[in-house]
Amino acid sequence: MNTLTLDHLDTNALLESVVKEVTHLKGKGEVAGTIPELANVSGDKYGVHLLTVDGEEAGTGDHLERFSIQSISKVLTLTLAFTFRGERIWERMGVEPSGTAFNSLVQLELERGIPRNPFINAGALVLADILISELRDPKKELLSFVRALGNCPDVTYDQRVAESERSSGWRNAALANLLRSFGNLHNDVDEVLDLYFHQCALAMSCRELAHTFRLFATNGIPYDGAPAVLTYSETKRLNALMLTCGFYDESGEFAYKVGLPGKSGIGGGIVAIHPDRFTVATWSPRLNAKGNSVMGMATLERLTTLSGLSIF
Amino acid sequence: MNTLTLDHLDTNALLESVVKEVTHLKGKGEVAGTIPELANVSGDKYGVHLLTVDGEEAGTGDHLERFSIQSISKVLTLTLAFTFRGERIWERMGVEPSGTAFNSLVQLELERGIPRNPFINAGALVLADILISELRDPKKELLSFVRALGNCPDVTYDQRVAESERSSGWRNAALANLLRSFGNLHNDVDEVLDLYFHQCALAMSCRELAHTFRLFATNGIPYDGAPAVLTYSETKRLNALMLTCGFYDESGEFAYKVGLPGKSGIGGGIVAIHPDRFTVATWSPRLNAKGNSVMGMATLERLTTLSGLSIF
Amino acid sequence: MNTLTLDHLDTNALLESVVKEVTHLKGKGEVAGTIPELANVSGDKYGVHLLTVDGEEAGTGDHLERFSIQSISKVLTLTLAFTFRGERIWERMGVEPSGTAFNSLVQLELERGIPRNPFINAGALVLADILISELRDPKKELLSFVRALGNCPDVTYDQRVAESERSSGWRNAALANLLRSFGNLHNDVDEVLDLYFHQCALAMSCRELAHTFRLFATNGIPYDGAPAVLTYSETKRLNALMLTCGFYDESGEFAYKVGLPGKSGIGGGIVAIHPDRFTVATWSPRLNAKGNSVMGMATLERLTTLSGLSIF
Amino acid sequence: MNTLTLDHLDTNALLESVVKEVTHLKGKGEVAGTIPELANVSGDKYGVHLLTVDGEEAGTGDHLERFSIQSISKVLTLTLAFTFRGERIWERMGVEPSGTAFNSLVQLELERGIPRNPFINAGALVLADILISELRDPKKELLSFVRALGNCPDVTYDQRVAESERSSGWRNAALANLLRSFGNLHNDVDEVLDLYFHQCALAMSCRELAHTFRLFATNGIPYDGAPAVLTYSETKRLNALMLTCGFYDESGEFAYKVGLPGKSGIGGGIVAIHPDRFTVATWSPRLNAKGNSVMGMATLERLTTLSGLSIF
Repeated sequence: MNTLTLDHLDTNALLESVVKEVTHLKGKGEVAGTIPELANVSGDKYGVHLLTVDGEEAGTGDHLERFSIQSISKVLTLTLAFTFRGERIWERMGVEPSGTAFNSLVQLELERGIPRNPFINAGALVLADILISELRDPKKELLSFVRALGNCPDVTYDQRVAESERSSGWRNAALANLLRSFGNLHNDVDEVLDLYFHQCALAMSCRELAHTFRLFATNGIPYDGAPAVLTYSETKRLNALMLTCGFYDESGEFAYKVGLPGKSGIGGGIVAIHPDRFTVATWSPRLNAKGNSVMGMATLERLTTLSGLSIF
Repeated sequence: MNTLTLDHLDTNALLESVVKEVTHLKGKGEVAGTIPELANVSGDKYGVHLLTVDGEEAGTGDHLERFSIQSISKVLTLTLAFTFRGERIWERMGVEPSGTAFNSLVQLELERGIPRNPFINAGALVLADILISELRDPKKELLSFVRALGNCPDVTYDQRVAESERSSGWRNAALANLLRSFGNLHNDVDEVLDLYFHQCALAMSCRELAHTFRLFATNGIPYDGAPAVLTYSETKRLNALMLTCGFYDESGEFAYKVGLPGKSGIGGGIVAIHPDRFTVATWSPRLNAKGNSVMGMATLERLTTLSGLSIF
Repeated sequence: MNTLTLDHLDTNALLESVVKEVTHLKGKGEVAGTIPELANVSGDKYGVHLLTVDGEEAGTGDHLERFSIQSISKVLTLTLAFTFRGERIWERMGVEPSGTAFNSLVQLELERGIPRNPFINAGALVLADILISELRDPKKELLSFVRALGNCPDVTYDQRVAESERSSGWRNAALANLLRSFGNLHNDVDEVLDLYFHQCALAMSCRELAHTFRLFATNGIPYDGAPAVLTYSETKRLNALMLTCGFYDESGEFAYKVGLPGKSGIGGGIVAIHPDRFTVATWSPRLNAKGNSVMGMATLERLTTLSGLSIF
Repeated sequence: MNTLTLDHLDTNALLESVVKEVTHLKGKGEVAGTIPELANVSGDKYGVHLLTVDGEEAGTGDHLERFSIQSISKVLTLTLAFTFRGERIWERMGVEPSGTAFNSLVQLELERGIPRNPFINAGALVLADILISELRDPKKELLSFVRALGNCPDVTYDQRVAESERSSGWRNAALANLLRSFGNLHNDVDEVLDLYFHQCALAMSCRELAHTFRLFATNGIPYDGAPAVLTYSETKRLNALMLTCGFYDESGEFAYKVGLPGKSGIGGGIVAIHPDRFTVATWSPRLNAKGNSVMGMATLERLTTLSGLSIF
């Protein structure tokens, strides 16, 4: 194999090449329109940040500007729920790709209230319900958990986004009520929705995301010296989940072209992991028809293709 | 990470430990009943064969006995079709997990004749159609291709199985006719079905499968000194496909628990790949409700858990 | 045709024969369990009341006892909405049988928020939304309308049932939120649900129902001397709708065996109409698997078969 | 009711008014394109023929020209199968509207091979299978049966249409194979398809259709002096089926606007029945998006609205 590996690679030079190759995509895609507050973000934002397990890091563009991480937060609530319940969380949801849109009610009804996986909205609502059962002050404690993971003490919820989600979140309300009708929510529907809308409204930068997801590249250890949050085996399992289910109805495409576990959000962010090597986060708000960032997807495809770095 | 890696591991000892841990599952599951000839196979067969990229190999049980590889053949026809058409094959099928049973017509109708991926039956029928368009004597040339991949010159079709498939293959005939109605088969329906029923009837042993799939662990090179069949990038892409779509409606589960690309068949076989490390094939005819071998799945789960070897 | 027609028939004798022939079904089926308050009703209640267009009437059993009319109320809100908007209401729902359960979200999502017909829950929620847009005090004015139709000034809502619906109505809340997400509810979700839960909680007797539905047998005239509520053409159209869509996923069966337009409710009531001849209402709380009263269906089947009176 | 009834009505004058009111629709809709031979028919053909139970008849336009009756034939095979098996045929299909397109595989798969009703293609294929089991020479005996019903001894199959159906009938082949896989076809798939393609290719005129369907207006008696083919009760049941299921996914619309039992075909024909009054057949090949004749639907809507004659 004559492909360069990250270890011998100038990461700055790599990012530079990648950025050059995706520039022609500027302006392609549409900023998410479903949540009013998100629609106000400039579609031209673009940032990339890469962090190796050795602590090297390189970033470019708007990589230090915070944006709404949206569905990326589902990995964080899954991780926190996992620390409480471990494999028992699979009594209430599955680990299979959904084959349908992220917010579909069809599948949830046909499968009688058991969400296909934790990364579709229905699954994330069940996770929120679990956190409410486990935590005294769920919003506050989730925030503390996230801040600790990435060592980012001033990450916070964007209250305007959370409010905007709430005022337009009828489809999520439909999902939550349907889950409740099947007995797969145990807490008050409005309380579950409130936590969910807040987690989606977490505002983080590419750099913060790369650091926050570092534990998935290091067998569960958030940062050097920190205690492990997940075991070796749990970490690889959640990575597998991100690979098979992390990109809505485009997970196969991402695995096929990029070949890394990861998670996207309709705020235009994507975070991806190469176990034992690095984490990388991108942000570009214009989305393709499947709800994933056009430039983010392309950036990561170029990154693994130019470097020869995929897990396969 | 204090987990042993294959490189320093006594593969024989590893297999021995794995076999011991799955013995209690003997007798669990049901031999496939849909194809009469397959129902005659003893449910107690069990074999495992592991082959490292360095040529080391170890096997146990019925690892040298041939069985019907069934859907595992879909990876082989995909590979052959890929050598002719490359990425153009995705004009006629997708790369997304299906979220439904392997032989479902529902999804194919809703998505207007474009199969979700090459590993559901509808996708494999389109692959067979492509091979018929490309080859002069498709059955003969496919056989030559398979024999060359694994250096197994006497692998052949089990004609009784092929005939048995044909005489009970109404659902596949339904899929083929539906594909034809959408214009996504270009050749005669009966000819496509004939090739498909033959590929499913390929008889191979675990050892032969491990060798035949070696190219996916070696960036496309079937055996030392052979010319590459797939490029570095193509190999990793097909590996990604096996990971996201290789186990019917249980692909997520396999990725979650085993963490390797692979493919199963209702004959009870499974083959899995650790890129740059090894291939491994198992055979045990009793299947779970999703159509995957009970002991095969457990064997591979134990193998990666005990050794710490998964791609994640 | 040697079958007797109603006009020359002793209706009391007819009812007596019918009742005798369905007695063996006592105890078959289950009282609706989804709404706690309904589950308290005795399953052994049974009443029938028949009213001819000439004003003759005959009843038996518990025909004067009030029960929760549930989905039967959908015909009443449709009629009231029709007086305001006429054919324009079809901009927001269809007139086709649904082919699925009465409270399914699948179809509503696939058909992008346009309910199949006004008699599935989604359709009835849109009707409630229309009434809220049209009326100053919707609950009060709906009640006045219903009282006037049947000349039953003391018909009212059963507040305990309404409250019971509300506290267990997650699936209806899911439907309402989904409708809202598609823009097919214009008013507050909770206000729409409140009206809907109240209309379902209307308590009426078989006799009151037979009188209230008389207008469908008399080209729109509630009672002699009253002004027409619907035109001749509108009346026959709503009758057609009841025939094709009035019995959830069993409408075809009812048309096939009974041959009259009608509407059922999970409180165990059914009302049916023979245009220009009579209306008939039955009550028996034990339901079959499709949610229709076992004895009610049988009573009406016997009634039309013994008398030769169906519209076909 | 101050609307004229047919009995006192000049049927010629009625038809004349109706024709005048639908003329503006000429050219609207598309001739069926799925069967090559049908696509050759002029879209401008238009005929209407009305036959009262007293033997009065009136026709206009191309009412004496034969066309391919297509799905209208399903009522005829249902009637013939009914004479052999009566209510037992419902062991193999239902009586419920389908809520989906006439040739959908989705519903058939979800409901495990039991067609929703006899008027969707899957149901008609099961009927063909029953006739093959019951008849020595099915095509010949079906033809004799049809000729006898309408007293039309020279009605016959259009062999070019039958062949055209066969050569493009992949979707029907898919349905037949799916039925076979569920065990709901008992005879050879090709033989079933052959009978089905022939019945669809029956060529009849509006006048012949009106006479052939007369038995549904006369409690089962094909023509005066003939023995009854169906009993009083059976006749009304099949009429009910035509009303709820006769117009594909537009049955509700037809019931709502026309208010008569009937059956349409993609050859552009429609036949409708007013029990105890009349039968009427229309022909106009241009179809709406649901596969029903644009001018035929409008003609029948005008006919019942102008005359006040519907069953409701």
